[in-house]
Amino acid sequence: MDLMQGILTRRSVRSYRAQEKISKQELTDLLKAAMQAPSAMNKQPWSFVVIDKPDVLDKIQSIHPYAAFAKEAGTAIVICANRADSYEEYWKVDPLLAGQNILLAAHGLGLGACWCGVYPDEARMQTFAKLLNLPQNVLPMALITVGIPAHPVGAPAERYDSKKVHFNQW
Amino acid sequence: MDLMQGILTRRSVRSYRAQEKISKQELTDLLKAAMQAPSAMNKQPWSFVVIDKPDVLDKIQSIHPYAAFAKEAGTAIVICANRADSYEEYWKVDPLLAGQNILLAAHGLGLGACWCGVYPDEARMQTFAKLLNLPQNVLPMALITVGIPAHPVGAPAERYDSKKVHFNQW
Repeated sequence: MDLMQGILTRRSVRSYRAQEKISKQELTDLLKAAMQAPSAMNKQPWSFVVIDKPDVLDKIQSIHPYAAFAKEAGTAIVICANRADSYEEYWKVDPLLAGQNILLAAHGLGLGACWCGVYPDEARMQTFAKLLNLPQNVLPMALITVGIPAHPVGAPAERYDSKKVHFNQW
Repeated sequence: MDLMQGILTRRSVRSYRAQEKISKQELTDLLKAAMQAPSAMNKQPWSFVVIDKPDVLDKIQSIHPYAAFAKEAGTAIVICANRADSYEEYWKVDPLLAGQNILLAAHGLGLGACWCGVYPDEARMQTFAKLLNLPQNVLPMALITVGIPAHPVGAPAERYDSKKVHFNQW
């Protein structure tokens, strides 16, 4: 898939074929894509918790209001910030860029993915940290579900809005 | 360029051909790519200030310690968060994903780009807000320089690190 076309046609996928899961190779490819994101001073302040056990996937719906489809997807990746590795406070930025790479890479592989917000919702961050037994300096930033789309995925509406573009000053 | 290959080979470009600038069409393509990013409840809480006037580009080096090459690049895009449009506090996330789309789209078009951190550095955010005359509810999140690379751009080192991957629990 062409890079620009991929960016323009990616969309959030929330319906998955429950009988199938992404392959080990696909998972590695997604994580490779994530780790090629830029980071402040190349500190790469991120980690990834892959959830693929049915009982753990099942628990997600009780701690996230918009991610019940994680079970059907079969795989969810929790993007984490490693605060201790970060240059200044850029742990608030760098792991999110890694997450966007996962969404796009999934689309490029013909998979479906959906970003489910965790950071900066403090309560949700705490429940995820507890579920995954994260160390204190590791913060859950987002949950990305990945799986085989249940239906063919059409391109999203074009969102370009020239009113959102300013030149040299607001 | 292939989507996955593009993600894996993108790197930060800090040397640009000072005599050339990106075209208007390329700029529009970058902004289209940005605005196809996902956002919480599809609120699209972002705006973009394109800096292409030499005198404004020239001022960047006095307010950002690592972005003097903006002048040479010829174009810089300040990714902004529109706090008033945001679902909950996700203005801290959504515009950053739009920014990552710009980095990748630039690479796909054969251009060079570099993410220069602004958010969450409060002092830097204030000076950029002042330079661009941003309304109070609009926050500068990152500066992305874009231009024609001065040299052929090689792929970056592979950053994949299996120690950063955990399964089902830390």
